Amino acid sequence: MATPHEPKQDRSRATRQRLLEATIDCLAEHGWAAATVSVVAERAGVSRGAAQHHFPTREDLITQAVEYMFDTRMDQVKAEAMALGQVDQGAARTLAVVTALVESYSSQLFKAALQVWTHAAADEALRSRIVPLEAKVGRVAHRVAVEALGVDDSDPVAHHLVQATLDLARGLGLADVLTDDSARRKEIAEQWAATLHVALTTPR
Amino acid sequence: MATPHEPKQDRSRATRQRLLEATIDCLAEHGWAAATVSVVAERAGVSRGAAQHHFPTREDLITQAVEYMFDTRMDQVKAEAMALGQVDQGAARTLAVVTALVESYSSQLFKAALQVWTHAAADEALRSRIVPLEAKVGRVAHRVAVEALGVDDSDPVAHHLVQATLDLARGLGLADVLTDDSARRKEIAEQWAATLHVALTTPR
Repeated sequence: MATPHEPKQDRSRATRQRLLEATIDCLAEHGWAAATVSVVAERAGVSRGAAQHHFPTREDLITQAVEYMFDTRMDQVKAEAMALGQVDQGAARTLAVVTALVESYSSQLFKAALQVWTHAAADEALRSRIVPLEAKVGRVAHRVAVEALGVDDSDPVAHHLVQATLDLARGLGLADVLTDDSARRKEIAEQWAATLHVALTTPR
Repeated sequence: MATPHEPKQDRSRATRQRLLEATIDCLAEHGWAAATVSVVAERAGVSRGAAQHHFPTREDLITQAVEYMFDTRMDQVKAEAMALGQVDQGAARTLAVVTALVESYSSQLFKAALQVWTHAAADEALRSRIVPLEAKVGRVAHRVAVEALGVDDSDPVAHHLVQATLDLARGLGLADVLTDDSARRKEIAEQWAATLHVALTTPR
């Protein structure tokens, strides 16, 4: 919570961030219909008026929440991958990167984003806001994965296998929505990492 | 539409099937909220009373629609795969099976099922009906894929790579919900089929 000595601008930034995080939690736990500005504001401990000052419409709140949390998550994956690159090499690095990517897509953020994507399928106004965000998410996730794996993206085999790894991660995320799929997911990620590593390092 | 000479039982079966198909179309095109018994009945050209005779609740209609369409689809994939096994062998067969599986998950049925799965995440009553259906879907799709690829499922590498192929297909299906992803999907399926074929045929 804000303290009396906190500068006004910092308080405003903290309020905004609490709203964005509460939006993700509401979407992931209670679904699209429940994630209204009022419910999110209450969860964040912010008045409805203050919430609407930051986010005039529900669509503003929801799309900005997904984008903010995605950016935060990708910064984490990038930092983890850079730290990793200095320690592990070879198959161990590939496994660590595949595991980090796969776990990203089984997060609360993925569950929230799934609610938004699915709702956008039948809501033209929301869809027109989500399509550019989806394109950005795809681009950034691909770049982070390429850097983390240390592969040459101009090689079409490497390019397509990195894409496939992200599609696999998305599919595994979907399999975790209704039940805890973590044990099976771990086995799949291990096998995928081993197969991917051989494919990426086979001379062409 | 039913003709006066059609036996009553056949008419009833045809009505039921029209309702199940209309449910999938409503879900895929207009989303969860729009797929009510009334809307589906109207789309199927069936009275609301007749629809409720077949499916007392909306959950009955929706879960049975997803199960029926999944069974139908898997029968098709199985028949295609059996025909395939007599023509193609080796890498061409692997590519054909991967393509058929991937395209299954980008169908109208997948888009409908995604609406149901996503809604079930925040609806305990629906979730308790969908979780056993999800388990069945996973089991049957795995068995069909194993038979179609002609691999030994008791080999853990083959088992996990077949699972990964289905997870990849699910992820690619999700990428097709808001935009037409068919061109990218084709490239990913081709690369994965090549990598999978090498991995499955490398002596262990």
